[in-house]
Amino acid sequence: MVVDRAELHALLDDALVAHVGVTLGEHPVVLPAAFAADPDGPDEDGTLYVHGSVAAGWLRGATDATVCVTVTQLDGLVAGRSAFHHSMNYRSAVVIGPARLVEDPAEKQHALRLIVDHMVPGRSATLRPDTRKELAATAVLAVPLHEASLKVRGGGPVDEPEDVAAGVWGGHVPLRLVAGEPVADVDATGAVPDDVRRRADVLAAR
Amino acid sequence: MVVDRAELHALLDDALVAHVGVTLGEHPVVLPAAFAADPDGPDEDGTLYVHGSVAAGWLRGATDATVCVTVTQLDGLVAGRSAFHHSMNYRSAVVIGPARLVEDPAEKQHALRLIVDHMVPGRSATLRPDTRKELAATAVLAVPLHEASLKVRGGGPVDEPEDVAAGVWGGHVPLRLVAGEPVADVDATGAVPDDVRRRADVLAAR
Repeated sequence: MVVDRAELHALLDDALVAHVGVTLGEHPVVLPAAFAADPDGPDEDGTLYVHGSVAAGWLRGATDATVCVTVTQLDGLVAGRSAFHHSMNYRSAVVIGPARLVEDPAEKQHALRLIVDHMVPGRSATLRPDTRKELAATAVLAVPLHEASLKVRGGGPVDEPEDVAAGVWGGHVPLRLVAGEPVADVDATGAVPDDVRRRADVLAAR
Repeated sequence: MVVDRAELHALLDDALVAHVGVTLGEHPVVLPAAFAADPDGPDEDGTLYVHGSVAAGWLRGATDATVCVTVTQLDGLVAGRSAFHHSMNYRSAVVIGPARLVEDPAEKQHALRLIVDHMVPGRSATLRPDTRKELAATAVLAVPLHEASLKVRGGGPVDEPEDVAAGVWGGHVPLRLVAGEPVADVDATGAVPDDVRRRADVLAAR
C-alpha cells in the first residue's frame, strides 16, 4: 500500500493511544493500548508494537491473527454551513496485519523501551532494568507497518455554494492535546526529572 | 452488564471520536467516526449513533453484524518509577452490540442532529434542514448501549515499594484536549456564531 511514510511516522510519534481491533469469538473487540512504532523494526516497512498484560484475553486472541491497529489524532471541529458538511479534522492511520507475539528477549526489551520512550522521550534510560518477573508478566505484539493507510482532513468546511451565498458562517475550531504541570506522587522526592519536564513542556506549548 | 451509567454518559459527552470495529472479510477493521449517544434512544439502555457515507464499505459491512464501538479519552501520562509501571490515565467505554441501519426518517434526522450537536452543542437548531439528497447520502448506524463496559484509570503510578524507597521520582502529567480560537472560513461573513464561540470557550477553559 502506498502511503507517505514520513507523514505516517509523524502521526505515530504525535499520537499516544492506539485502538487495537481483534476478533474475539464471533465479533470484533476494540481496545485502547499504548504503542510505539519502529521504522527500522524487523517487519516489512517497520514494526508497530503494542503491549499489555499476559493475562489480557485480547492479547491471546490477537496472537497470530490478523489485527487492525488504528491511531487517530483529533485536530479540530469543522462547523459547516449545513449539518451535512459538519466534520472533524484529524489524522488517522489504519494498520492491518498479522500480530506476532514477540518472544525474542532482546526485541521484547527494545519494544518495551520504545513504548516508555514514546510516552516520555528519554525516560527508559533513567530507569532500572525490567525484572524477569516484569518481562514475563508483559506481552508484546508486533504488527508490520506494511499495510498502512493514512487519512488526513484539515482546514475549513467544504460547503454548498448556496449556503455560502446565503451568508451562513462556516469555519473550524482547532483542537490539540496539551499537558498540564507534572504532578509528583505523594512519596516522590526531588525535582521533576528533566525527561518528564521536557515532555510536559513540549505538550504544553503545542 | 453493570456499569455506572452516569459515568458512561459523561465520557460519551466529553469524547468526540469513537473507534468503530467491524469485521470486513476475514479480519477486523477499526475506523474513527463521529458519534452521539442518546440515553433515551429506542434501544435497550439507550442508543449510540455513528454515521458515515452510504458509500463507505465499513458501514455496509457493519449493518446487522455485531460491532464494537470504543470511545477513549486520554487524561494523562503516568511516569512510574520503573518501565513496568508506566501507564496512561484514561477513560474508555467499550460498547458491543448489533448494528442496526437507521431507516426511520425521524430517527435518522434525530441522530444526525445529535451528532452535530455533540460536536457543537446547539448548532443544529441554527442550520437549514437537511435535503433529501443529503439524507440519502448519509448512513446512520445505531448500537444499543446495553452491553457497555467502562475502564477508568486516574492518578499517579502504583510502584514497587523498593523503587519508592530508592527515591526514584514518580508522578503523572495531566493531558487535556483544548480548543484554539475559531477560524472563520475565507468566505465567512459576520461574527463567530454563539454556539461555536461557546464550544471553543468551554474546550479552551478545561
